[in-house]
Amino acid sequence: MTFILYQLPVNTHTTMLGTSFIGYSRGLSTGPQAFAINPANGEVMEPGYAAPSSAEVEQAVSLAASAFPVYRMTSASERAKFLRAIAAEIEASVDAIAARGAAETGLPEARLRGETARTIGQLRLFATMLDDGSWLDARIETAIPDRQPIAKPDLRSMLRPLGPVAVFCASNFPLAYSVAGGDTASALAVGCPVIVKAHSSHPGTAEIVASAVVRASQACQMPEGVFSVLYGSGRDVGMTLVKHPSVKAVGFTGSFAGGRALMDAAAARPEPIPVYAEMSSINPVVMLPGILAEKSAALAEGFFQSLTMGVGQFCTNPGLLFLQDGSQQPFIDALTELIHKAAPGVMLNAGICQAYQDATSNAAKQLGVTQIASTNPPSNGQGAPMIFVCSAESFLQNPALTHEMFGPASLIVIGSLDEIAAAAEALEGQLTASIHGTSAELAANGNLLEILERRAGRIIFNGFPTGVEVCHSMVHGGPYPSTSGGRSTSVGTMAAARFARAVAWQNAPQSLLPAELQDANPLSIPRMVDGKRC
Amino acid sequence: MTFILYQLPVNTHTTMLGTSFIGYSRGLSTGPQAFAINPANGEVMEPGYAAPSSAEVEQAVSLAASAFPVYRMTSASERAKFLRAIAAEIEASVDAIAARGAAETGLPEARLRGETARTIGQLRLFATMLDDGSWLDARIETAIPDRQPIAKPDLRSMLRPLGPVAVFCASNFPLAYSVAGGDTASALAVGCPVIVKAHSSHPGTAEIVASAVVRASQACQMPEGVFSVLYGSGRDVGMTLVKHPSVKAVGFTGSFAGGRALMDAAAARPEPIPVYAEMSSINPVVMLPGILAEKSAALAEGFFQSLTMGVGQFCTNPGLLFLQDGSQQPFIDALTELIHKAAPGVMLNAGICQAYQDATSNAAKQLGVTQIASTNPPSNGQGAPMIFVCSAESFLQNPALTHEMFGPASLIVIGSLDEIAAAAEALEGQLTASIHGTSAELAANGNLLEILERRAGRIIFNGFPTGVEVCHSMVHGGPYPSTSGGRSTSVGTMAAARFARAVAWQNAPQSLLPAELQDANPLSIPRMVDGKRC
Repeated sequence: MTFILYQLPVNTHTTMLGTSFIGYSRGLSTGPQAFAINPANGEVMEPGYAAPSSAEVEQAVSLAASAFPVYRMTSASERAKFLRAIAAEIEASVDAIAARGAAETGLPEARLRGETARTIGQLRLFATMLDDGSWLDARIETAIPDRQPIAKPDLRSMLRPLGPVAVFCASNFPLAYSVAGGDTASALAVGCPVIVKAHSSHPGTAEIVASAVVRASQACQMPEGVFSVLYGSGRDVGMTLVKHPSVKAVGFTGSFAGGRALMDAAAARPEPIPVYAEMSSINPVVMLPGILAEKSAALAEGFFQSLTMGVGQFCTNPGLLFLQDGSQQPFIDALTELIHKAAPGVMLNAGICQAYQDATSNAAKQLGVTQIASTNPPSNGQGAPMIFVCSAESFLQNPALTHEMFGPASLIVIGSLDEIAAAAEALEGQLTASIHGTSAELAANGNLLEILERRAGRIIFNGFPTGVEVCHSMVHGGPYPSTSGGRSTSVGTMAAARFARAVAWQNAPQSLLPAELQDANPLSIPRMVDGKRC
Repeated sequence: MTFILYQLPVNTHTTMLGTSFIGYSRGLSTGPQAFAINPANGEVMEPGYAAPSSAEVEQAVSLAASAFPVYRMTSASERAKFLRAIAAEIEASVDAIAARGAAETGLPEARLRGETARTIGQLRLFATMLDDGSWLDARIETAIPDRQPIAKPDLRSMLRPLGPVAVFCASNFPLAYSVAGGDTASALAVGCPVIVKAHSSHPGTAEIVASAVVRASQACQMPEGVFSVLYGSGRDVGMTLVKHPSVKAVGFTGSFAGGRALMDAAAARPEPIPVYAEMSSINPVVMLPGILAEKSAALAEGFFQSLTMGVGQFCTNPGLLFLQDGSQQPFIDALTELIHKAAPGVMLNAGICQAYQDATSNAAKQLGVTQIASTNPPSNGQGAPMIFVCSAESFLQNPALTHEMFGPASLIVIGSLDEIAAAAEALEGQLTASIHGTSAELAANGNLLEILERRAGRIIFNGFPTGVEVCHSMVHGGPYPSTSGGRSTSVGTMAAARFARAVAWQNAPQSLLPAELQDANPLSIPRMVDGKRC
């Protein structure tokens, strides 16, 4: 079997083989092959990507399981060095990533470069987190031998890694939530080996990034199995990973159906494991009348930008907008003008494009819904920006109107403030909720804010939901079904805790404690000592 | 229908009605009644406890759901005051609790008084945690408007309550893990209303404690529904709670079968919710040869005390002991002498007593197992301390030997250090693992320590697993099946995080932020500001 290799820019070290990464080896090319398809022109891209055999999947998991006892005992500084080495290797491959990634996803090269920068920054942020050490929640309580009625023992606790983690790549973030994205970075930071299931839409980008991670892993002398990447289908390879006894947690970004299937499989295991699935969200936005009166045109422009960015293919895309009846017309007029002129964009793959067409066609058919569409018809593979408008009464009576339309479409709901509050209360869990208002009207709507806070992971004031800052205080996780549980974030350093559990040491000799818990605090990390943070 | 009221000491405020607590009302007494049975003498105790009707269960949940938006917005100091009021009310009822509790459980009054003190201390510790505020993990990242390529927003996050929590009382902790125990205290601390499912073994104790909580709740003007207690069966009332859409999390301490059934029901809901189940653990202990040579008799005495405390009915009871072949005889001789003379004790209820007899009879029948029993035969309702001995080879070949025998029984496994390591590696998840050794031999057995750390939530050096300190650094939660997930603790202040999720505020006006996240830090709580703890 011969491969016609995709032409890579000269500054990459990667030869495209189209096979899985099984620890430090490459898989066989004998399995059924799948090809990336350029969504802009339908071109089939070489090489074909071979599904791993069952034995190869087993080998990847087995290597991860045997790497775990070694990798988990590496020091925080060794893992920080590893993450920085991955970042540097990816940085060196950015031209190859941008070229192949743009062809595979239909996203512009500038977006691929930006997302690569974000991915590198994310890896470096987790390295900084390891340097700092506060993520460990290290706690020390010293013994009180003469306490009555019984002696108090010496107790110390901190977070420890769970074990091998299966990471599913996202279609819409070929870098930041794929092979070396947030799930991988946080799991590796904590001390968990990672087995990645590559996404079929961008296998070549996955191969370039995987090669970078493997080079870093070898250069840092990490145990083989700390990182593997498997091609093949989610139902077959992915489900095998989720059900495997050696896999201890799952990170997933994708559809509700896919995420829930993984949750159900993980919950049904003899040993259930956590699935951190980031699934679907319509990200309600409320614009109060006072602010609309002040700047309808600017709000329409901001909303349009947020709606159409990346052809609307963000989990934080604003899919729902509440306006108080009577205040809406100047805003809707301004937005209508923008939508009419809007250019359709190439969507990530044919499946997503078809689902967008189906969802928007369905929305247009619902009772009491008016459609505002672009006057520029989409070509094959493209999605056109679109707005739907209905009354709060229609919205409250029709659950179909709360379904996500993944792409550049949004539903505007017009009603009284009471109806808007009732509609917000009726919403399922969301990643974000945004509210626009003057200072006075925000202060006067505490009830609505309280409702939105119960429904979402992040509340945005006078802003739009797209643009998820990678930082310490980001919460990119809301109540179900926006994520599997809402008790974690997939973006930012708090994501690390997903793959860890606290362990306590009772009356341990100093020399047998992790350095982080020794009296002398040799790593100078923040800790809680006898109830006080210091 | 008339009730013969159980005679209470004069200093209690409680009249025993035998009905559920539905918010601030009492349920009807018309449902099927169940009676507590004194396990020491088989006496049926008045009053009968009526199962709530479906409408009453619905009413309790509905009140909790409507209390939530109010209760979650109470200040930390209001909730701290509430917890302290509950503690004071329980303290005032300690005589009634000790009398009724001892009769219902067969535990000595001194234990009931001690456990009441622990429960009060636990409530007060959570109040202290609220005063301190560090549990919130408050994080502030200030805006950088001129950052390139895009402005950094102001982002702030902290933990917020999940919603109504269903708490299942434990048979073996009628106070500390029942009506106002650790699960209730941590949920109320965080801002979650609690609906308690009382345990059928100690309904009267539950009523006394519930009355105390209700008095405190009313005195503190908490919204009705912040606390309810339901009698009735776990399969019926309990499952209704776990499946109810308004219930957002579950706390459970009990059997593996019971816990797993709740986990499965919660995972199968349209909206899955977390179940924090503390289930079964055999708590392996390793004694290395050097320390055995130094003090076999003292170790035998310590082990015997840990094994027989509370008639072995602790989740941390040491059910498994590894000894290196050749080192065991003096220890076993000393322990045998203690076991021979040991007095049987009254077990918590007839079901637990029967299960103990079945489990120990089954262990005695396993290939290669020798039994060492007390020479004092147990009366009805009693369990007698018991030891089994087998080789590591037998142990590794027979999964039946890893089953928990809930009660004062333990299995001693004799083998080489390699066999002990292999047996430890083969164990399921445990709440605790204990190791006894001289400084030198502990240091020389890093491999074994590493294995034990992967298998348990708490590692105890030169000590025994019973005695779970209620403090900030306690981890009373190990990998499955010792608990549902191993990513949480049910004892100590870290338990609070189980019932909370992080919420982020982006570009929020100062006045609309929770006090904990305002620039001025009016509550003076520890926070992370721009990446630094302060």
